[in-house]
Amino acid sequence: MQSNSIVDQYCFADGITLDNALVLYDVYGSLAHAAMLEKMGIIKKKELNKLKKTLVEIVSLYKKGEFVIQNGDEDVHTKVENYLSAELGDLGKKIHTARSRNDQVLVDLRMYAKKEMLEIVGALISTATEFISFAEKFQHYPMPGYTHMQKAMPSSVGLWGASFAEQLEDLVNLLKVAYDLNDQSPLGSGAAYGVSLPIDRNFTSEKLGFKKVQKNSLYCQISRPTFQLAVLQAMSQIMLAASRFAGDMLLFTTSEFGFFDVDSSICTGSSIMPQKKNLDVMEYVRAKTSTVIANELKTATITAGLPSGYNADFGETKGAFMESLTIVKQTLNVLSATIVSITPNLEKLEEACTADLYATHHAYIKVLEGVPFRTAYLDVKETFKSLKVPNPVTHLKKSLHIGGTGNLKLGETKKTLIAKKKFWEKETHVFESVISSLLS
Amino acid sequence: MQSNSIVDQYCFADGITLDNALVLYDVYGSLAHAAMLEKMGIIKKKELNKLKKTLVEIVSLYKKGEFVIQNGDEDVHTKVENYLSAELGDLGKKIHTARSRNDQVLVDLRMYAKKEMLEIVGALISTATEFISFAEKFQHYPMPGYTHMQKAMPSSVGLWGASFAEQLEDLVNLLKVAYDLNDQSPLGSGAAYGVSLPIDRNFTSEKLGFKKVQKNSLYCQISRPTFQLAVLQAMSQIMLAASRFAGDMLLFTTSEFGFFDVDSSICTGSSIMPQKKNLDVMEYVRAKTSTVIANELKTATITAGLPSGYNADFGETKGAFMESLTIVKQTLNVLSATIVSITPNLEKLEEACTADLYATHHAYIKVLEGVPFRTAYLDVKETFKSLKVPNPVTHLKKSLHIGGTGNLKLGETKKTLIAKKKFWEKETHVFESVISSLLS
Amino acid sequence: MQSNSIVDQYCFADGITLDNALVLYDVYGSLAHAAMLEKMGIIKKKELNKLKKTLVEIVSLYKKGEFVIQNGDEDVHTKVENYLSAELGDLGKKIHTARSRNDQVLVDLRMYAKKEMLEIVGALISTATEFISFAEKFQHYPMPGYTHMQKAMPSSVGLWGASFAEQLEDLVNLLKVAYDLNDQSPLGSGAAYGVSLPIDRNFTSEKLGFKKVQKNSLYCQISRPTFQLAVLQAMSQIMLAASRFAGDMLLFTTSEFGFFDVDSSICTGSSIMPQKKNLDVMEYVRAKTSTVIANELKTATITAGLPSGYNADFGETKGAFMESLTIVKQTLNVLSATIVSITPNLEKLEEACTADLYATHHAYIKVLEGVPFRTAYLDVKETFKSLKVPNPVTHLKKSLHIGGTGNLKLGETKKTLIAKKKFWEKETHVFESVISSLLS
Amino acid sequence: MQSNSIVDQYCFADGITLDNALVLYDVYGSLAHAAMLEKMGIIKKKELNKLKKTLVEIVSLYKKGEFVIQNGDEDVHTKVENYLSAELGDLGKKIHTARSRNDQVLVDLRMYAKKEMLEIVGALISTATEFISFAEKFQHYPMPGYTHMQKAMPSSVGLWGASFAEQLEDLVNLLKVAYDLNDQSPLGSGAAYGVSLPIDRNFTSEKLGFKKVQKNSLYCQISRPTFQLAVLQAMSQIMLAASRFAGDMLLFTTSEFGFFDVDSSICTGSSIMPQKKNLDVMEYVRAKTSTVIANELKTATITAGLPSGYNADFGETKGAFMESLTIVKQTLNVLSATIVSITPNLEKLEEACTADLYATHHAYIKVLEGVPFRTAYLDVKETFKSLKVPNPVTHLKKSLHIGGTGNLKLGETKKTLIAKKKFWEKETHVFESVISSLLS
Repeated sequence: MQSNSIVDQYCFADGITLDNALVLYDVYGSLAHAAMLEKMGIIKKKELNKLKKTLVEIVSLYKKGEFVIQNGDEDVHTKVENYLSAELGDLGKKIHTARSRNDQVLVDLRMYAKKEMLEIVGALISTATEFISFAEKFQHYPMPGYTHMQKAMPSSVGLWGASFAEQLEDLVNLLKVAYDLNDQSPLGSGAAYGVSLPIDRNFTSEKLGFKKVQKNSLYCQISRPTFQLAVLQAMSQIMLAASRFAGDMLLFTTSEFGFFDVDSSICTGSSIMPQKKNLDVMEYVRAKTSTVIANELKTATITAGLPSGYNADFGETKGAFMESLTIVKQTLNVLSATIVSITPNLEKLEEACTADLYATHHAYIKVLEGVPFRTAYLDVKETFKSLKVPNPVTHLKKSLHIGGTGNLKLGETKKTLIAKKKFWEKETHVFESVISSLLS
Repeated sequence: MQSNSIVDQYCFADGITLDNALVLYDVYGSLAHAAMLEKMGIIKKKELNKLKKTLVEIVSLYKKGEFVIQNGDEDVHTKVENYLSAELGDLGKKIHTARSRNDQVLVDLRMYAKKEMLEIVGALISTATEFISFAEKFQHYPMPGYTHMQKAMPSSVGLWGASFAEQLEDLVNLLKVAYDLNDQSPLGSGAAYGVSLPIDRNFTSEKLGFKKVQKNSLYCQISRPTFQLAVLQAMSQIMLAASRFAGDMLLFTTSEFGFFDVDSSICTGSSIMPQKKNLDVMEYVRAKTSTVIANELKTATITAGLPSGYNADFGETKGAFMESLTIVKQTLNVLSATIVSITPNLEKLEEACTADLYATHHAYIKVLEGVPFRTAYLDVKETFKSLKVPNPVTHLKKSLHIGGTGNLKLGETKKTLIAKKKFWEKETHVFESVISSLLS
Repeated sequence: MQSNSIVDQYCFADGITLDNALVLYDVYGSLAHAAMLEKMGIIKKKELNKLKKTLVEIVSLYKKGEFVIQNGDEDVHTKVENYLSAELGDLGKKIHTARSRNDQVLVDLRMYAKKEMLEIVGALISTATEFISFAEKFQHYPMPGYTHMQKAMPSSVGLWGASFAEQLEDLVNLLKVAYDLNDQSPLGSGAAYGVSLPIDRNFTSEKLGFKKVQKNSLYCQISRPTFQLAVLQAMSQIMLAASRFAGDMLLFTTSEFGFFDVDSSICTGSSIMPQKKNLDVMEYVRAKTSTVIANELKTATITAGLPSGYNADFGETKGAFMESLTIVKQTLNVLSATIVSITPNLEKLEEACTADLYATHHAYIKVLEGVPFRTAYLDVKETFKSLKVPNPVTHLKKSLHIGGTGNLKLGETKKTLIAKKKFWEKETHVFESVISSLLS
Repeated sequence: MQSNSIVDQYCFADGITLDNALVLYDVYGSLAHAAMLEKMGIIKKKELNKLKKTLVEIVSLYKKGEFVIQNGDEDVHTKVENYLSAELGDLGKKIHTARSRNDQVLVDLRMYAKKEMLEIVGALISTATEFISFAEKFQHYPMPGYTHMQKAMPSSVGLWGASFAEQLEDLVNLLKVAYDLNDQSPLGSGAAYGVSLPIDRNFTSEKLGFKKVQKNSLYCQISRPTFQLAVLQAMSQIMLAASRFAGDMLLFTTSEFGFFDVDSSICTGSSIMPQKKNLDVMEYVRAKTSTVIANELKTATITAGLPSGYNADFGETKGAFMESLTIVKQTLNVLSATIVSITPNLEKLEEACTADLYATHHAYIKVLEGVPFRTAYLDVKETFKSLKVPNPVTHLKKSLHIGGTGNLKLGETKKTLIAKKKFWEKETHVFESVISSLLS
């Protein structure tokens, strides 16, 4: 309902593009709302059926690419309402009873987020599983362990790979709490102050498959950027794990390290240097981590200054939210594709396991002979270069405490991942069933 | 073990100050570790008792302010080890067997975080409870509801207050997942690559009261900034809720709005304007929100660039972490003190409930008479100024759907808060028991 | 030169869209480079003319919307090179001699930035000039001055408006240093390590109108995100000024303050509340400030982790850079449109100038009678409510020191703005001449 | 003038510590202000002399560590005023005439910033000069040039070192514009709305050595965080250059690269690994870059939400500002110390210059024989491994265009640095003279 072009361009142009990803969710929300209007007696059974039929039509048009929001359409909500009015006359004009675009967009974004997060959590678990397979396969490939970027102690390709599996597995929990927070129905909160009609918020919440009704109508509205932020915080954590992987890959594939070869299918060349084989994709993972963190920050700072109530500033958080979910989904796919393309270079790895890695080990041998650790440490400091280097593979198998190179507990992590996978597959099934019911 | 003063000053000066808050946790970690060394046979029962006695001495000295880490002490771990060596000779030099300062600092920070988070979650629940009491007390005080900072629809002081209670209640869940993530024992991960001695990581984990062992030794180390970030993300969310409250308070206490008076005990004056009564404290809440967000961001960006392994960069995240926990704890106390100091100005509030707030209401009346909403909307647009203003109190009581001004469901929120309070009190009790056991 | 679709999609999809804004600059760079190749003897005069003709063709096609970079085209540089090869055969394949896509994209981005910044600085100066006119027009409209969001001392609409004019004028200097930094020719730096051919970097630099050659070839490359960051830092400062204006506008147009009315042509309505007139556009200014700050931060953090040399991460900074320049340009236009639409409400403003604003004034009267300020302050603290309120207009005219309400020095600021305007118009003219020469 | 302890602790505790660094500047400001009060006739010549004597006493006490702001002192301004009142009775109470703590703190911070920035710019120029000497010394040490972290083309230690010199030299310009912005006198702007007494702002501005008076009193106040931000933006740029150096150092000193050795005086050891020699100091440079960026961001976001006028939020920006200036000063010293401690490992460097680096070179040879570049590129792609590797030193001397490895233009950069050094030494001299005059 804006009025002139400088304002339109500035405030709404971005939103129009983004809203095309929300069409289906806007329809779902409208289906649930219409059913409630009928239950309340605002519209008749017959009218409901007409609305339903026309809304389902929009789904078909959308899937054929024939329902596109464009400049002049204002937003997805107006576009849908206008379509209904054009098709159904006065009946179309009734659909906006007892709701506001403010609670509508909330419904759309929460449904959208559920769908995307379900896909992301699936990709997260499957990437973690790839890391487990990788760690199993190369469990006893020796590798120097680094601290301060200097060789420090004996490690293994298995330990390295499994560290990502465990990190991703932990991140599923962070994602879950954001998912649950988002899984509350805001429908009925109106413009932020409810509606002065006897609506049934439980009814629409159940129809849409939300776990519960978010009660306070003002909280519903102001939670929009807050919940998005909670999701983005989980997304940043995923990107940070991916960025560690990317940084390591770029280092381990330098000719100087030479620990890993990667399939050239994921590499790129150069316009000027005929010999080049670059891992751009890992550089982009590293860079896109900053993009997601910046999106998180943007959302936090937009939120920070806002008074209670609905504020148009919310609109500016939409792009950051959607872009981040897309980036994370793509990144996890990129990670999966990269892991399976790695061939560790055993010869180089064994060569890299030099005497200095075993200095602490020699100090411990003295400790077991009764020398206090600090004294043994000082002894070895002088002598380690002349001490015998153990066989690296044998050595790493001997570190048997929990999480040591000889006891990675891959089976335990795998078991947890399988359990989480089952849980989320069920959750996905429920989500899909809800949508089927709405459309049927 | 650094070597010269420009490096010392640059790298370690900040850490030394901060480490004074970690002394107790370093002692707890050492007590558990010593017990395990005895179990492994590295030290004798009698030696363990000596170590224990001397460590408990440190606790006493610390509480009397006589155990202070200063320039030249390097850090809390070296200070404690040096004290043990000075008191116990060779025995003191054994304590560092099978551990590194890298896993030690992790233990310290996680114990510290548990303690602080338990206090914060307590303050969070109690602040939420204050908001519920406030909302109950002023439940039917009418107030304009704003969108775009313009008067929009009828609201109430109760709806406003309760919106914070629900937000804080939801945040308990975000805090919990960060708490659980942090509640994993890193002890035994060494410098990031475990130790080549048969340590018992379950034993120390249980002694220290961690919920589980964090397995992969490399993951233990690199999770240091990641887990801190997870905690800071929850802290940012709390600050954002506080900042909304602060912004509203600053607006509602302007002479132009005049909705609330606050007790002058929380106000400040001016050095030049004799008449002033300022709410600096709310401005600081607003500003400190940026501080915590910046600390979160700093932690994320430090983490982003790091290779797998231990990196000294971790040290630079410590201050941001500790400062943020302190700010959040103080902020929640400030919020509690402010809420109870508010006196809503009923007269001003009623005056502010002008005709325009009820325009949508009038449209809904037409809807109930069968007019399509969009048509009713257009009618009222022309006429609302001349329509009858309902009694504001009566009107807000009529909004009876879930979360409407007449049905805030305060009882439900209160019930949830009580359950959460119980849960966390139990958690706190367990934490305190663990420490008692370690010291006895 | 990437190879498969998951990598393409992830790394290059965004860039392809963005590169459409760089076509002209890529052509300009190619024109200068081709001229140098001819000077070096790599191509013949006749060949140069053919290249020139074909490159000018691209300009025409582009302006007609017929030269569009699409998926599969890789980037603007390859698209242009491919077009030349298709049209000119082997001659087209010569154009890439002695340059890399790495220095090409730098040339494109710097030319693009010059063009955009010239427009922005023009808009900045003209917006500042609008503020001066506004301040002149309403110079003696009294207005309360606020500290801590509470009424503090007498102020004026003129003082308020002029504060923006001076801020924007200062920002021209920040913009200039970023402009100058950017105005260095990177052409000839190759992939970051120069080229082993005797190229003439001064020649191309002059052809393209750069102020100087950026010497060190490695620095050329790694300065890409650094110079972009310098520009974005200036952009953030502009947005922060705009955001202060937006925040004030949203406050001063509340019904509670009621200081300003704005033309409804820049307002929007509500889908549910028929009475609403919202200033969305100012909310978007506020929110987009966070977008630009986040873009700045993203660029800084992408830069932070990078090793010397060319890194693909640079590509991820392109969108943030271009988006920010566009936002700032639009924002300045929005500001201009808003300023002229303001009608201050004199009656409301005078009413708001209540007794408490003059308390310090009364203390000063005592000071002039010889009472020490601190004593006078304490006296007035008790009595100010009963003291005579001066005529607000007369009073504000009496504050005659530099920058006081009675001596705003608008003329001085206007004079400086005129001088700066002239300077930048000349700079713009030079830029345009350079392009004309290249194309002729 | 705050009233109770929860507020004090929350709002003012940090500021009290920080204010100890501002004592001298507060005294300087008071000296200038007192001189003006005498000129205005508010105090007598004799009174001025007494004030001056007592203020100079504070300087002596401060330098002996006997003038320390502590809890209960509120802030530096009150502490100084209280001291004057205690020593001089009613005369002390006159000093606050015609000023506010708001313009006082601005004066203090701007004087403080000038002093710190003068030291920083000195360190910046001297660090750049160290890089030039380094580049001269190792000008013809060959080194692989990297793109995408993969070996790309022949480079040199000289090119690498000189790239930092040029970057730092450019940054002097960014620093200068921030310095000039900050170099405006805010004294006389009062609480933000001037003072209703005929003060002489030019007089105090000149006394304090500011380049000009910042006119608009409201702009003076709200420019506080804005000018700090401008300074921090320059600081971030310096840190980003330092962070590139740190990242490269950490990479080039790995045993895998082994390009550089550094003196062990700037390295640290490990508590558990006797063999370690770590470059913590470079890791801290990398991490502190995030600290400064976070401080910049914090300042920007605190600023973003603020209404025109004085806001207590400004106080929260003080720590971020002061900490960043300190970090940057230390970092530049750390850089200088590190550069001189580097010994390039010539053997390793030459070894690293393998055949693939010269592939583009071979393509260019074909180009000079008339083959189109793109064709030559494709040829060499197949054959480069068997082509003759040129002598690396001879080869790098042949790249003779501006900024190529054979023509680094070190002399030019050195000349510019000398000119800038002279300029800033003069500026420093002027600053010191101003202070001498004030105190004499």
